[in-house]
Amino acid sequence: MANGRVMTDTTLTFYWGSGSPWAWRAMLGLELKGLSYESKILQFSKGEHRSPEMLARNPRGKVPVLVHGDVVVYESLAILAYLDRAFPEPPIFGATPQEAAAVWRLVSEHDAYVVPLGTRVIRPLFTSPEAVAEKADDIRAGADELHKELGTVEARLASGGQWLASKAPSAADAAYFVSVQQILRAAGKPAAEPLGLGLLPLEQKYPKLAAWAERFAKVPGVARTWPPHWTEK
Amino acid sequence: MANGRVMTDTTLTFYWGSGSPWAWRAMLGLELKGLSYESKILQFSKGEHRSPEMLARNPRGKVPVLVHGDVVVYESLAILAYLDRAFPEPPIFGATPQEAAAVWRLVSEHDAYVVPLGTRVIRPLFTSPEAVAEKADDIRAGADELHKELGTVEARLASGGQWLASKAPSAADAAYFVSVQQILRAAGKPAAEPLGLGLLPLEQKYPKLAAWAERFAKVPGVARTWPPHWTEK
Repeated sequence: MANGRVMTDTTLTFYWGSGSPWAWRAMLGLELKGLSYESKILQFSKGEHRSPEMLARNPRGKVPVLVHGDVVVYESLAILAYLDRAFPEPPIFGATPQEAAAVWRLVSEHDAYVVPLGTRVIRPLFTSPEAVAEKADDIRAGADELHKELGTVEARLASGGQWLASKAPSAADAAYFVSVQQILRAAGKPAAEPLGLGLLPLEQKYPKLAAWAERFAKVPGVARTWPPHWTEK
Repeated sequence: MANGRVMTDTTLTFYWGSGSPWAWRAMLGLELKGLSYESKILQFSKGEHRSPEMLARNPRGKVPVLVHGDVVVYESLAILAYLDRAFPEPPIFGATPQEAAAVWRLVSEHDAYVVPLGTRVIRPLFTSPEAVAEKADDIRAGADELHKELGTVEARLASGGQWLASKAPSAADAAYFVSVQQILRAAGKPAAEPLGLGLLPLEQKYPKLAAWAERFAKVPGVARTWPPHWTEK
């Protein structure tokens, strides 16, 4: 143990970039496992994720990438699944087959439904006011669908349980947490205000979800994963 | 054992529909595990996947759905992951953490890159000749990208190994097998001929991939998973 974290026999090196939701959730996996790892943040603006060294690790030139001895893993779900096999405790894909089914089901639904809707709503809000105005109807339609997905999660949390799919924080919590943080950040942009998306304040519309997000944010290690450029001013 | 298959203490019931690629790969998981299960094929044309009973099992009204005692699982990856936890032998997500990383990485790449490209190329070929003519450029552009993905798999197989990601057939083989079969079927449609997509004959362009597909088709149980309407005339 070093700083309360589990040292591995072989160094874990994690390559990521600030603001990549895929990198964020993989990093949450490392933190939920309490692992000690070498963090290598790459500057997208400098193309560091596409350097010859990084392309040798992942020919797609994307992050996250995890290196553990001879093992090089990319694709965030593969990193999370690898961590769960290489370092079984605490489990992040459920302690039982039934919990595993729930975690994987939620992760799959998140990736298949929440991610595309999130992208549809969020992406334009980081462009120009003109682009937002032009896409207003589509952003609102996407937000309506997104509300349905968030409503399902709210109902799930309302029916009991501190975490989304298991008795302890899992990969499902990591996946939804990243999306919820991205949605909150986008919904707080001035460009979002005239659209009336009804996402803020989160605790008013989705009190259970807001409480869960606060709870997850306090899990040891989670604070370390925050995208650096979100806190820079 | 019944007919060489493993009987479970609790009945496994599998709901699927002919031609659903997601249902197909989940069913391949059941067969690779050698499990005995009750097969319930639903008629999409009659809306059977959206009956009140099915909506109670999966509110999204989609297949596949697996029921195992009290456990109801939907989303194909969740079904595959559940099967691997509930019935560990033989593993379909690798026998070691390193194999697990490879299986999950390939499944993730398949879902993130191959599936959207496959849809872009395949879907129009099942519509009208006019629709194909209108979308010809986009279908060709999609096929070019798809060739890159298939080329990566060909290179992987050429560097050794009978299976894509592990010493035994895995969920990665199941995922790619379904897509390859769908691509072959679409590329053989008369509407595809004038487009010159360069996908057929598969063994000419991708000999390793073609040999692998033949090998996988002969794995015990795989023949039982073929979409019934593909073989009806």
